[in-house]
Amino acid sequence: MKIIQKSLTLRARSRGFHSITDDIRRLLGNPLPIEVGICQIFIQHTSASLALNEDADPTVRIDFETYFNKYVPENDPDYRHDYEGSDDMPAHLKAAILGASVMIPVKDGALALGTWQGIYLCEHRNYGGNRNILVTLMGQ
Amino acid sequence: MKIIQKSLTLRARSRGFHSITDDIRRLLGNPLPIEVGICQIFIQHTSASLALNEDADPTVRIDFETYFNKYVPENDPDYRHDYEGSDDMPAHLKAAILGASVMIPVKDGALALGTWQGIYLCEHRNYGGNRNILVTLMGQ
Amino acid sequence: MKIIQKSLTLRARSRGFHSITDDIRRLLGNPLPIEVGICQIFIQHTSASLALNEDADPTVRIDFETYFNKYVPENDPDYRHDYEGSDDMPAHLKAAILGASVMIPVKDGALALGTWQGIYLCEHRNYGGNRNILVTLMGQ
Repeated sequence: MKIIQKSLTLRARSRGFHSITDDIRRLLGNPLPIEVGICQIFIQHTSASLALNEDADPTVRIDFETYFNKYVPENDPDYRHDYEGSDDMPAHLKAAILGASVMIPVKDGALALGTWQGIYLCEHRNYGGNRNILVTLMGQ
Repeated sequence: MKIIQKSLTLRARSRGFHSITDDIRRLLGNPLPIEVGICQIFIQHTSASLALNEDADPTVRIDFETYFNKYVPENDPDYRHDYEGSDDMPAHLKAAILGASVMIPVKDGALALGTWQGIYLCEHRNYGGNRNILVTLMGQ
Repeated sequence: MKIIQKSLTLRARSRGFHSITDDIRRLLGNPLPIEVGICQIFIQHTSASLALNEDADPTVRIDFETYFNKYVPENDPDYRHDYEGSDDMPAHLKAAILGASVMIPVKDGALALGTWQGIYLCEHRNYGGNRNILVTLMGQ
């Protein structure tokens, strides 16, 4: 049984949903250092998140941004936590809804993603800056 | 330490929320091949998802479908990714909100679910077809 | 490779979002019994959930409650599962959206949370009672 842990600093991205599948693949190498097991990808922030979804058509990621801006609105007068900007509290909510980590099974030395699945960095702040990711592979 | 990985093809279900707790239990056997550890159940798709929730009263699952159809609506004119049908983009959004995997602790050779917890297949497409699931048990 | 599993009964909290970071740290000890690996925190209920988010300013947690009450409303006449009270079905929905577990990487013998990240108990019922948590550490 092996545990491999690697960290990655993602350069600042614009607010929105971005594919980081290639960044993660490059970080972990090919084949992966384990044949079978589980890979956790974790973001150490509270206003950006990770998700797995359609990685082929970029309009899907644009529609994600459109949707979440409508359903987690800015400037709700009931928000109390608003002194870091109108994008701050919605960013926390979006991050909790989508989650701070994705768990991907490892099979045959590769991430066992489905045909259309890829890894999204979901940047919910207007100027979120660099984002720290910690990847943990457990398996054999 | 053992890792057991099993795949399962779920037959096509209608759009909605379905209990697959028994399918998973049958796949893994009783007792489980590990005494203690973690079980990941992962769906290799971007328009269906998995969730843990109330597995006793079937009206809960009907209300899940009602809720998600209201709050992730079809035919929003702002969606750009619409050429696969009006259920397509909402399916991606619902899948990301609910997530592609559930993680269940294993204790005393069994899934350590609470009294009311069961495993949902959340089918977000009108005709989603078969769905591939990959289950990974890690423990001892 | 070691697996440590501990259970914890959280005393009844009021409806809302509560930091349980200190409860989890006390349960697991310092340093953790593993140096590197993964920690799963799992709630064995269907109307309360766990999340990772901003753990410094308590108004963030108040705004979480405000937001989720607006976007997962009570008393929708379309709900069928309503005989346990108006807070029941919304609690199931909120629990599925936020999730029953959080997965935290372990690094250098500690939970590798970001600077602002903490662990929330999300109590979605008016009178939820005690809540059972199962924590599983896997690593070396």
